[in-house]
Amino acid sequence: AQDVPAVLPDAPSEPPATPAAPAPAAPQDIPAATQSAPAVVHEAPRVSWRLASSFPNESPTLFAGAEDVARYVAEVTDGRFTIEIFPAGDLVQPGQVLEAVQHRVVDCGHTASTRYFDTDPALCFDAAVPFGLNTRQMNAWMNQGEGLALTRVLFDKYGILNFPCGYTGAQMGGWFRGEIKTVDDLRGLKVKAGGFARHVLSRLGATPVDIPAAEAYTALEQGVVDAVAWIGPYDDERLALYKVARNYYFPGWWAGTLQLSLYVNQGAYEELPKPYQTALALACNMASSNMIARYDAGNPDALRRLVSLGAQLKAFPKPVLQACQEASLAAYKELSAKDPMFKKLYDSMMAFRDKQVPWFRMAEGSFDNMVATLGQPGA
Amino acid sequence: AQDVPAVLPDAPSEPPATPAAPAPAAPQDIPAATQSAPAVVHEAPRVSWRLASSFPNESPTLFAGAEDVARYVAEVTDGRFTIEIFPAGDLVQPGQVLEAVQHRVVDCGHTASTRYFDTDPALCFDAAVPFGLNTRQMNAWMNQGEGLALTRVLFDKYGILNFPCGYTGAQMGGWFRGEIKTVDDLRGLKVKAGGFARHVLSRLGATPVDIPAAEAYTALEQGVVDAVAWIGPYDDERLALYKVARNYYFPGWWAGTLQLSLYVNQGAYEELPKPYQTALALACNMASSNMIARYDAGNPDALRRLVSLGAQLKAFPKPVLQACQEASLAAYKELSAKDPMFKKLYDSMMAFRDKQVPWFRMAEGSFDNMVATLGQPGA
Repeated sequence: AQDVPAVLPDAPSEPPATPAAPAPAAPQDIPAATQSAPAVVHEAPRVSWRLASSFPNESPTLFAGAEDVARYVAEVTDGRFTIEIFPAGDLVQPGQVLEAVQHRVVDCGHTASTRYFDTDPALCFDAAVPFGLNTRQMNAWMNQGEGLALTRVLFDKYGILNFPCGYTGAQMGGWFRGEIKTVDDLRGLKVKAGGFARHVLSRLGATPVDIPAAEAYTALEQGVVDAVAWIGPYDDERLALYKVARNYYFPGWWAGTLQLSLYVNQGAYEELPKPYQTALALACNMASSNMIARYDAGNPDALRRLVSLGAQLKAFPKPVLQACQEASLAAYKELSAKDPMFKKLYDSMMAFRDKQVPWFRMAEGSFDNMVATLGQPGA
Repeated sequence: AQDVPAVLPDAPSEPPATPAAPAPAAPQDIPAATQSAPAVVHEAPRVSWRLASSFPNESPTLFAGAEDVARYVAEVTDGRFTIEIFPAGDLVQPGQVLEAVQHRVVDCGHTASTRYFDTDPALCFDAAVPFGLNTRQMNAWMNQGEGLALTRVLFDKYGILNFPCGYTGAQMGGWFRGEIKTVDDLRGLKVKAGGFARHVLSRLGATPVDIPAAEAYTALEQGVVDAVAWIGPYDDERLALYKVARNYYFPGWWAGTLQLSLYVNQGAYEELPKPYQTALALACNMASSNMIARYDAGNPDALRRLVSLGAQLKAFPKPVLQACQEASLAAYKELSAKDPMFKKLYDSMMAFRDKQVPWFRMAEGSFDNMVATLGQPGA
C-alpha cells in the first residue's frame, strides 16, 4: 500500500505536510508511445470487478454514479475491464462498504464517507462537514489543494484508495413537522440526519434517529421522528415527505455539497494495468460531472412541484444557524484534540475555505446576484 | 457528418426540438464484453493527431487544457493515441482554429467559441453570452439540458464536433484607467473585450479594440485603450495591468463562466476506434475539472496580491449593469430575428437559466451566504 500509483489530476499546488501520500504523477511521467507498448500486438487483459453501492438502485442520482463508472470504464477499454454493480443490501449492507472494500469482499465500493462518522470522524472530510465547502470549493481542495493527498493518507490505513465520484450540491435542511423559530425548538426533536450532523444536533439537545430513507415517510407519520434531512428536491420528491412534514428548511448547514467516493481496494488497484487505472480515474470524474448536472437540472422543477403540493419553504433563523455553528466548532475542537489526522484535515480544509469564501462572494456571488435581480422575468 | 456518434454523458432529459443532432448513446448501447472484442489478441491502432490551441503556452491555465487532453488520452490508450499540441500562432493563428479544424489542417483545436462571434454569433452559446449561465449551470445545460445537442447541430455545418473542455468561472469586469460611475462613462471609451461583449459595448457608445493580451499593458500605458477585460486575478496578474489601470471592476457581466471547447474534425473523429472516441470525451471532462479547480484554487491568492499592489476593487453600479443588460437584450433580439439557430439557442439557454436562478439563489446562495457571514474569522 505504500507505492500507490498516480491517478487523479496534477500534483497539488502546495504539497501536503504529510509525506506519506505519494503525489499524483506529473505529466512528464507519461510514457511516450515509443517506450510504452510492444510494436505489433497488444494484449489487454480481461478484468472483472465487483462494486458494492451504498445506495439502492431506485435512487436515480446516487446509484447512477456507480453505473456511470462501470459504463465509461467498459467503453474506454473496449469491454475488457468490466464492473458488476451490487445495489445496497444485495451483497453488502449500505453502511459496510468501507469494511467490504478493505477486506476485498468486493474490489470497490460507491459510497459517501459521512456514513462512517462513527467508525472514524475524519473520513467525513472526504464527503461533507458542517459549515464546510461548496461543490466548486470541494473540487478545488481535492484537485489542487491538499484534499486528495491528505484523505489518501487517511484511507491508507484501510488499504483503500479514494476517488471523488459524484456531488449533490448544497443540500436542503430537511422536512420538519413543526417550525424552528429558536434553537430551543431543536431540543428533544427526533431527527433523521447524516453522521456528523447527528453529532452536532445531539449537542443541541436533539435526538438523532438512524432510519433508512425508505422508512422516513412512515416514521414521520407515526411520530417516530419529527424531522428528516435527506438531500434536496430532486431526491426528496420521491419520499413524498411534504404530506407528513410540510416545513422544508434551508440551508443544510452540514453539507454545502456531499462528495461521494469510489473506494478501491489497494491490492485490486495495483493489479490493474496502468491504462485501466487511468480509465477508473477518468470514469469517476465523468460520473461526478454527470451527477452534479443531474441534480442541477432536476432540482428546480422538483422544487416547483413540491411547493405546488404544499411544501412550505423556510430559512433557518440566523440565531439557530449561529448555535449550530458554535456546536460544530465545539465538536471540531474536541475531535481535533483526540485525533491528529482529524485536526490536520480540519485545519487544511478550513484554511482553504477561508481563502475561497471572500473571492467566491465577489466573483461568483456578484454575478449570480446580478442575474437574479436584473435578469429574471418581471425584475 | 450526419451520423455523429455518441460521446458525452447521458441522453438529455428533455430531447431537443431539433432532431438533426443524434442523442448521445444510452448506457445500454455499450457492447457487452462478450460481444465486443476478439477472444485472444487485440490490436489497438496507433493514432497521432495534431491539435491547434488558441492560447499561447505561457498561459498556464488555458493552454493546460490541451495538455490535459493529450496526457489523459495517451495514458488511457497506453500511448497508442497521441496528440501533438501547437500553441497559438505556431501552425494556426489564434482566431482561425475553427477554420483549421473544419478543413482538417489539424485534427482538433482547443479554443473558446466567443472568438468566432464575427463569423457566427450563435457559436457563443458554446462558450459565454452576456447575462448567461454560471459554471454549474453551463455544465448542467450542456450535460442534461439541450446545450450539447443544440450546439452540435450548429457545429455540424462546420464539420466539427464540439466537446466542453475547460471553465474559467465567473470573470472579472476588467481594468479601467478611470472610474465608471454612470453609463455615460462608457461612451467613447476604448475597450479591449471579448466578441459578444464588444458588440454590446459598442451599442453603449464604447469603442471596442481588438489587441492580443500580451499587448494590453503597453496599450493601456500609451492610451491606445482605456480599459482591458481579460479573465480573472489568476490570469490577469501576469499582465500587471494594475500599474497602468488601477480600477478593477466586477462582475464580468458577459461571462458567468467561459466554457472552452475541443473542436474535433468529424472525419478525423469517425476514423477513431470507439474506445478512443470515449477516451477523448473522458479526457476533455477531466481537463474541465482540472481547469476550474486551478482557477478556483489560484484566484483568491492572486487577488490578494493584486490588491496589495494597488488594485482598487470596484463594483459596476447597478444602473450601469441595467444599461448593459438592456443593450444585451436588444442585441439578442436583433440576432434572433436574423438567425433561427441563434434564436433556438438563446431561447433554450435563457429558459434553462430562468429555472436555475431561483433554485441556486436559495440552495447554493443561502449556504454560501451563511458561511460568508457566520463562518469567517472575526464574524
